[in-house]
Amino acid sequence: MSEAKSKTGGLAGVSAGQTAISTVGEGHGLCYRGYSIDDLAEKACFEEVAYLLLRGSLPTRQQLEQFRSSLESQREVPKDLRDILEKLPASTHPMDILRTGCSVLGCLEPEADSSQQDAIAVRLMATFPGMLLYWHRFHQEGVRIETASDADSLAEHFLEMLHGKKPDPLWIRAMDASLTLYAEHEFNASTFSARVTVATRSDFYSAVTSAIGTLRGPLHGGANEAAMELIDRYQTADEAEAGMLKALENRELVMGFGHRVYKTCDPRSDIIKTWSKKLADSVGDSRLYPVSERIEQVMWDRKKLFPNLDFYSASAYRFMGIPTPMFTPIFVCSRISGWAAHIFEQRANNRLIRPSADYVGPEQRPFLPLEQRG
Amino acid sequence: MSEAKSKTGGLAGVSAGQTAISTVGEGHGLCYRGYSIDDLAEKACFEEVAYLLLRGSLPTRQQLEQFRSSLESQREVPKDLRDILEKLPASTHPMDILRTGCSVLGCLEPEADSSQQDAIAVRLMATFPGMLLYWHRFHQEGVRIETASDADSLAEHFLEMLHGKKPDPLWIRAMDASLTLYAEHEFNASTFSARVTVATRSDFYSAVTSAIGTLRGPLHGGANEAAMELIDRYQTADEAEAGMLKALENRELVMGFGHRVYKTCDPRSDIIKTWSKKLADSVGDSRLYPVSERIEQVMWDRKKLFPNLDFYSASAYRFMGIPTPMFTPIFVCSRISGWAAHIFEQRANNRLIRPSADYVGPEQRPFLPLEQRG
Repeated sequence: MSEAKSKTGGLAGVSAGQTAISTVGEGHGLCYRGYSIDDLAEKACFEEVAYLLLRGSLPTRQQLEQFRSSLESQREVPKDLRDILEKLPASTHPMDILRTGCSVLGCLEPEADSSQQDAIAVRLMATFPGMLLYWHRFHQEGVRIETASDADSLAEHFLEMLHGKKPDPLWIRAMDASLTLYAEHEFNASTFSARVTVATRSDFYSAVTSAIGTLRGPLHGGANEAAMELIDRYQTADEAEAGMLKALENRELVMGFGHRVYKTCDPRSDIIKTWSKKLADSVGDSRLYPVSERIEQVMWDRKKLFPNLDFYSASAYRFMGIPTPMFTPIFVCSRISGWAAHIFEQRANNRLIRPSADYVGPEQRPFLPLEQRG
Repeated sequence: MSEAKSKTGGLAGVSAGQTAISTVGEGHGLCYRGYSIDDLAEKACFEEVAYLLLRGSLPTRQQLEQFRSSLESQREVPKDLRDILEKLPASTHPMDILRTGCSVLGCLEPEADSSQQDAIAVRLMATFPGMLLYWHRFHQEGVRIETASDADSLAEHFLEMLHGKKPDPLWIRAMDASLTLYAEHEFNASTFSARVTVATRSDFYSAVTSAIGTLRGPLHGGANEAAMELIDRYQTADEAEAGMLKALENRELVMGFGHRVYKTCDPRSDIIKTWSKKLADSVGDSRLYPVSERIEQVMWDRKKLFPNLDFYSASAYRFMGIPTPMFTPIFVCSRISGWAAHIFEQRANNRLIRPSADYVGPEQRPFLPLEQRG
């Protein structure tokens, strides 16, 4: 077993515990609490999905209305946090803004005990878009936007703050589906880091802060930004094909393809690809979508690698006028629902997550006093 | 194997990878890079130990002087961060201050690429005491202390900023030994969380921010504060004995005893116990040390549990006039050396840390439209 592990490393295929929140992988496809991602992305709104993840079952109409109105009432970013966001440089990576914003909120509105965890989950879900976009528009345009809002959904709230006007209904629906797709994914690295943090009985904000910092990396949430950079290199599908063949020849690491747990396809990719196509048509795109499709084809023909959720999310976001550095922060605005569900679950049956390591360092050796070193 | 794991959970005894930084556990005692903790705590200063952890070998005199002077020159907390610390409430948990301070520094002085990692490790080690104590004394006394300093060591720098005067040499030596004892401990939960974060190729600050949030919990770094609260309950050794017998009868969880990886003793406990005794004698204590010893005796007689590093650290810190909520932050000021070494090591041979989970949730079920729920 220890040999089997060391062959691959990174705890690949090693179970780190039980979960009732989602299943991933072959045979199952992806289900949140037993509901397939296809159904959820097509038939439910993100708020229903978040409720499902947090509370374990789909809401009734009344429960959904209550949940929506509690999210709506919690949107305003507190003044002290807004002041701090103004002090963070314009050049800061937006993920560093959310990591810091979450940590600061943990100072301003600390979790006294775990009876507050549900309220804090709602508060973070409600305020992340405001933290991000208050900072963004303050530094980009010098305006102090209103973070309170009566927008119907998180998707609408986000796009309205970003663009400063009521968003196209198609964009709201696309963003809403994207939030559903990104909401939860079992023991992915950021969720796992939230569980590691909270397993020491640390607080809710610490766990989410860890998750944001972990999601930030290009091997995880940062992949959608890397995918956009790749797509942006090419002006036409043919150019993309030639460029990709060269990149593969040079053994370049291509982001947005393949997955640690999926082996033949990512069940979320077709859904976001359909949205990307609809958005491409609506904005009259004749470059990004064809380039994306050709990259997909080359990756399959040459490497038998399939696009994951991140790949077509990139063009979809671009079509909605979202700046690339905000792609991973949107992932945060969605995944907070899954992280929160995992924090609840870890706390309900907690055990410190503390693996061991194989020591490969020097044998025990005698201490050499400073004078004798040379 | 999967049965063996589920019996205990929390990845106990499961190897999550290789390390050359330290070994823990029976037979080995604790060694940093092959040097026993007894030698290091007695014969080396904390700066030598930090150098050893970061660079892999003990420094020559010249290397040590360079390392010291680089730490010394990096101590000043930047103005924007000081302003932000002033905005964080006086009632904030000091670990939340360090978690936020680290995250903010990651915005102000971001890591452009991993060639900067060594400099950032030094910068964080140099600034953590200043972040903590600037915030503390601003809110407690309304003073804005100078965070730059020419103190010879981190131990002296910390105590001088805390008390506002040159510290007793005995205290400096005790604090220095304590920093060495807390510097590194293999794949403990906070170090592991730093590795999980950086394994997505996230940045150095994100990894350390995760580690701080993870260390915060009472099952990890927070244990020394919990131990102090326990000791503080009792006025005499006899009272402690009676109280502890009652606590054990009530199945109270007692912090500061036993350890996930040590089975018969914590090799660091005797060292800090000796320091606690010296400090007790120097301040004329006749309560905390005898109470601590009696608690130790009861825990051994009744539960065969030995004190871990956290237990006698509590009284040692109290004797040096350190407020209890700063116990875990001191752990941060020291452990940043181990965390940094693990971040370097993870990056040098990286693989995403992404375990799997055993799904125990509902079977796949048909979606129920909103109208049909209730």
